[in-house]
Amino acid sequence: MEGVDHLAQERSKAQFDVDQMKVIWAGSRHTLEVSDRIARLVASDPVFRKDNRTLLSRKDLFKNTLQKAAHAWKRITELRLSEEEAYWLRHYVDQPAYTDLHWGMFVPAIKGSGTEEQQKKWLPLAYKMQIIGCYAQTELGHGSNVQGLETTATFDPKTDEFVINSPTLTSSKWWPGGLGKASTHAVVYARLITDGQDHGVHGFIVQLRSLDDHLPLPGIIVGDIGMKFGSGAYNSMDNGVLRLDHVRIPREQMLMRVSQVTREGKYVQSNVPRQLLYGTMVYVRQTIVADASSALSRAVCIATRYSAVRRQFGSQDGGLETQVIDYKTQQSRLFPLLASAYAFRFVGEWLKWLYTDVTEKLQANDFSTLPEAHACTAGLKSLTTSATADGIEECRKLCGGHGYLSNSGLPELFAVYVPACTYEGDNIVLLLQVARFLMKTVAQLPSGKKPVGTTTYMGRAQHLIQCRSSAQKAEDWLNPSVILEVFEARAIRMSIACAQDLSKFSNQEEGFAELSSNLAEAAVAHCQLIVVSKFIDKVQQDIPGKGVKKQLEILCNIYALYTIHKHLGDFLSTGSLTAKQASLANDQLRSLYSQLRPNAIALVDAFNFTDHYLGSILGRYDGNVYPNLYEEAWKDPLNESVVPDGYREYVQPLLKNQLRNARL
Amino acid sequence: MEGVDHLAQERSKAQFDVDQMKVIWAGSRHTLEVSDRIARLVASDPVFRKDNRTLLSRKDLFKNTLQKAAHAWKRITELRLSEEEAYWLRHYVDQPAYTDLHWGMFVPAIKGSGTEEQQKKWLPLAYKMQIIGCYAQTELGHGSNVQGLETTATFDPKTDEFVINSPTLTSSKWWPGGLGKASTHAVVYARLITDGQDHGVHGFIVQLRSLDDHLPLPGIIVGDIGMKFGSGAYNSMDNGVLRLDHVRIPREQMLMRVSQVTREGKYVQSNVPRQLLYGTMVYVRQTIVADASSALSRAVCIATRYSAVRRQFGSQDGGLETQVIDYKTQQSRLFPLLASAYAFRFVGEWLKWLYTDVTEKLQANDFSTLPEAHACTAGLKSLTTSATADGIEECRKLCGGHGYLSNSGLPELFAVYVPACTYEGDNIVLLLQVARFLMKTVAQLPSGKKPVGTTTYMGRAQHLIQCRSSAQKAEDWLNPSVILEVFEARAIRMSIACAQDLSKFSNQEEGFAELSSNLAEAAVAHCQLIVVSKFIDKVQQDIPGKGVKKQLEILCNIYALYTIHKHLGDFLSTGSLTAKQASLANDQLRSLYSQLRPNAIALVDAFNFTDHYLGSILGRYDGNVYPNLYEEAWKDPLNESVVPDGYREYVQPLLKNQLRNARL
Ligand SMILES: Cc1cc2nc3c(=O)[nH]c(=O)nc-3n(C[C@H](O)[C@H](O)[C@H](O)COP(=O)(O)OP(=O)(O)OC[C@H]3O[C@@H](n4cnc5c(N)ncnc54)[C@H](O)[C@@H]3O)c2cc1C
Ligand SMILES: Cc1cc2nc3c(=O)[nH]c(=O)nc-3n(C[C@H](O)[C@H](O)[C@H](O)COP(=O)(O)OP(=O)(O)OC[C@H]3O[C@@H](n4cnc5c(N)ncnc54)[C@H](O)[C@@H]3O)c2cc1C
Repeated sequence: MEGVDHLAQERSKAQFDVDQMKVIWAGSRHTLEVSDRIARLVASDPVFRKDNRTLLSRKDLFKNTLQKAAHAWKRITELRLSEEEAYWLRHYVDQPAYTDLHWGMFVPAIKGSGTEEQQKKWLPLAYKMQIIGCYAQTELGHGSNVQGLETTATFDPKTDEFVINSPTLTSSKWWPGGLGKASTHAVVYARLITDGQDHGVHGFIVQLRSLDDHLPLPGIIVGDIGMKFGSGAYNSMDNGVLRLDHVRIPREQMLMRVSQVTREGKYVQSNVPRQLLYGTMVYVRQTIVADASSALSRAVCIATRYSAVRRQFGSQDGGLETQVIDYKTQQSRLFPLLASAYAFRFVGEWLKWLYTDVTEKLQANDFSTLPEAHACTAGLKSLTTSATADGIEECRKLCGGHGYLSNSGLPELFAVYVPACTYEGDNIVLLLQVARFLMKTVAQLPSGKKPVGTTTYMGRAQHLIQCRSSAQKAEDWLNPSVILEVFEARAIRMSIACAQDLSKFSNQEEGFAELSSNLAEAAVAHCQLIVVSKFIDKVQQDIPGKGVKKQLEILCNIYALYTIHKHLGDFLSTGSLTAKQASLANDQLRSLYSQLRPNAIALVDAFNFTDHYLGSILGRYDGNVYPNLYEEAWKDPLNESVVPDGYREYVQPLLKNQLRNARL
Repeated sequence: MEGVDHLAQERSKAQFDVDQMKVIWAGSRHTLEVSDRIARLVASDPVFRKDNRTLLSRKDLFKNTLQKAAHAWKRITELRLSEEEAYWLRHYVDQPAYTDLHWGMFVPAIKGSGTEEQQKKWLPLAYKMQIIGCYAQTELGHGSNVQGLETTATFDPKTDEFVINSPTLTSSKWWPGGLGKASTHAVVYARLITDGQDHGVHGFIVQLRSLDDHLPLPGIIVGDIGMKFGSGAYNSMDNGVLRLDHVRIPREQMLMRVSQVTREGKYVQSNVPRQLLYGTMVYVRQTIVADASSALSRAVCIATRYSAVRRQFGSQDGGLETQVIDYKTQQSRLFPLLASAYAFRFVGEWLKWLYTDVTEKLQANDFSTLPEAHACTAGLKSLTTSATADGIEECRKLCGGHGYLSNSGLPELFAVYVPACTYEGDNIVLLLQVARFLMKTVAQLPSGKKPVGTTTYMGRAQHLIQCRSSAQKAEDWLNPSVILEVFEARAIRMSIACAQDLSKFSNQEEGFAELSSNLAEAAVAHCQLIVVSKFIDKVQQDIPGKGVKKQLEILCNIYALYTIHKHLGDFLSTGSLTAKQASLANDQLRSLYSQLRPNAIALVDAFNFTDHYLGSILGRYDGNVYPNLYEEAWKDPLNESVVPDGYREYVQPLLKNQLRNARL
């Protein structure tokens, strides 16, 4: 970061201690220190360059990914990095790779569903990367409905083996990351069949490729499913297709923590409760929420810095034009996203705690909070990934034309990010799960059963369905309890309205189907309440550092009031607030934007991103955008020659009116 | 379209005459016939294949584009195609190319701003493509604010020439399509300077490259600005950078229809009114609205067909699962987009009429409706492009995981489409222009000046600010006048509320800046009213064909009621309807979805897209998705070898724990 800092003046305006905010954002001083050190390590390593990524052919991009993954592993072992450091290293390499699935899905699947013996056998191999694993669940014809998978695993008592088979084209495994080209093993999900009986879907460890020469084993057809969204982006990943033609694996390779098949072919449940499996799901989704805040904060960092560099209109007497960040429309699109990035960060942090809490309770055989934790993670996964995907694209638009250039970093960020709305549970399907849970909770209210965790507020239904917001002036909208109450009122009223509408149907399932759109909206309302309330909790903690707490309060209020504005129809139609109160909230929101404005650059500096990780000319730390855009342009292959390839065949004859005779 | 039609059953359910609907969609039987014939011509020509587009390197893609453009021109001349046919041919080639700017911007700029003499000289050259032109306005540092451009055109009376110059890096022309590699000429926008005086921005025809060898002329540095969003997509276009170092052009190459520089260097206005230039803008924006309906309808066609093919959950006894199009959440996301595609189609048709009307009035020196027409096209450009961009991505999500594959066609459609939100006027900047016009109209109401055209309803402000919607049961929401009234009430109440808030500011400009976000929302409300009212007008025409009118009524009502639902906050906070009425509207909306459901496939068939143009395996006419996805996968370059490139260097050593010694 040498040279002139074009954003120095912006930075000098900040009214808070940026270094302290970095600690808050990172979660702890320790995490900040580790992640910062590793980020610089990655940024300074030429193998980890990624600026040419969108120009590589598919094959070169994939080879480059293999190289980066190997180099990352080499550095991890050479430097004897801790697990935490290794995580950050992979994170900052910032290129989707088979290792993401190996560490993120294959290992957790074995940990979560394998017996101790199985873990002892397979985990050391995986930890040392002597095998590469992936997670093969989805099929060409089956995704969201896991119970509809077609792949079969039939027990053959004669040989004590499972026969894994793809009976149809639609049963081909399809999508698993790392499957296409890299993995040697997979956890394959298949219908377990013993003695002609179908026991539903279970996981099996299947070796796919020879450890000697990487050739697929007999009976296995495997390959890549082809190009995906964007250039660069997720195309570094070998999402794969897999067909299994009566492939035999030893019985011990069924993941048997929860249910088992005996030597005789008897299907039995172990004494480990099924619910334990949900722990893994909570874990994975918690990482997705953390990733959402990280993707959104990148986009926001780019758009915020560029909005301070970009000037448009309003120059007096030939002076400088206005920075576009000073336009209220720009602020009203950008600042709520900045606030959302912080909001998702803190709700992610809380989810980490929730995961520990759930795990402890599970170990103590206490399953009481599991449905609530499950619904809550499902809902937050849906809410944060949808908002982040939309938010990244909004940030791109906030950069005007230049946001459309690859080297703005935003197109690739978007293309890499959007599938998060689909994988690990389609966002709409997840919302409907949340809605089911909410309907159950509402139904149990009369019985006096106390709702727990994030649904505790539902215990105060009596009050919440009739209360009126006390907000009378704009400043009242800075009051956390005023804010919380309207979010709670809106959420519960929507849930109860759904429950009442449902009760008019004689067939509950039909009712649920018919009203599913309203139900999904009720689920969103519930989830937004969670985000707001966790943000408020965070802000009410002891927060050191000059002005830091104040900034977080501003961000929290922006998140809340913006959400009210965006979903005003919900709030008004449920009578949770009045039109007059809404208008006051809006006035307050505008004033909050003005308060945030001088701190905007510092608030994105607090994310502590290196220019390498950001990967954006528009988002450069030093704000030196134009000369770098200009220089970068000339590197495009099209500029290798002044007269383009194809001129003689296709342009000259056209200009000379000689196309008629040309063979094109 | 040989083989089994997997959607035949869906097609048999249609309750209307699809062929007649095709005529409605196309605008006339003649247009349907021409466009259909040309679409098939393009689809059957191997040179126009586009299925490998996302795999080509930038250079190969560009060369391929040059080839297609030349081939298109060859076919156009060989077959002596009419202007209309030639338009459809370029349309169905469906690959952004320099010719888009040549025909779409360069020619119109000369037609709109050139004198008769200039038109006589330049247009024949352009029509025969003996020169290739582009439109060079935007600069690296200047976009939305055209008045801020830095390029200068200084008149030199000694030589009777203009000296065109880029004084700074930020004055480099940046973005013009076709500029980078293909164009021989450009209309360059520059500040006109005579005798030391700055007369603001004017257009100049500048030759960029030699017509002999295509080399840039002296003083000219020109190149491509590099990769943009997506693979394939808009990367076939050579958006360019241009620096001019005191380049001299004859005085006659300033576009002089409206203002002129005499031989002596005097700056004079011609007797042609300035306003004429707006005609061109109305024209260009009208084509953008038409493009919006065409892009959105493609995405909707893909998502609708695939939603009927895709099955997920709900199988009873191992039977077929439920088609995802039968889920109400799917319908509530998809059908409003289908309705929007039709809505934009008809408002685009109306804009075509408006353009003719404006042109006639201009020719008769009647400028009275120009500001209204200008605001209306600006607003509709903004509204339809934003909704289309979001809609395409929503369609992609509606296809679950498979929507993320390039060969779904949706990623490329999105990446190509999104800049429409930015070029020809950033959508937010445009909304603020509309808002300015609305505020002016409101301010003039007391004077008794009658608002015209799309603002006519504002003349009924008295009634509209106090009326109450008469809707009392769900069916009332099928009544066009009930619908229109709430849209009118909402729009005018938002405008008037803004005007009242503005009046509290002593400085109007400060007030406008402070309230700009509310103002933009008021502009959206006004534009949505236009779309709804033009849809209603359309439906109220005489519409032949069994059941066609009925379907259009359903679509119109879906568009209107969905818009109410989405912007409910506006409607409720302005008191344009009550919560109870909103809930009835919602019930009606659900019922409309059910009515639309059996016709969904036929309604997208009515777009009459060839599989070539659609470019989507998921959207195939025959619905035969899975075998084609499977086959296509194997064509990816990564599948050329079973063991991937890079295995020996980067995977084997890792698996064998031999990375330490490897040089990566
Ligand atoms: C980039 C990427 C990486 C992936 N990685 C892996 C991996 O490593 N391993 C793996 O096994 N899989 C992987 N997947 C697959 C992923 O898990 C599935 O795509 C995901 O579960 C969604 O399922 P689907 O594609 O079947 O969507 P579908 O369920 O077919 O969704 C289509 C539409 O139907 C709707 N819908 C479906 N069911 C319902 C319902 N009951 N009610 C209402 N609406 C419904 C959805 O909302 C959606 O709009 C990956 C996918 C992607 C895109
Ligand atoms: C694919 C593509 C093709 C193009 N083709 C051409 C071409 O052929 N010829 C050509 O000359 N140009 C072309 N352009 C350039 C295009 O016209 C500009 O990008 C467009 O006008 C937007 O201007 P900008 O990039 O300066 O955005 P900016 O104005 O810098 O926008 C940045 C942000 O500032 C906001 N903003 C700006 N002004 C205001 C204001 N007054 N009030 C509130 N907010 C404001 C915007 O809303 C946006 O969020 C092309 C651009 C693209 C992306």
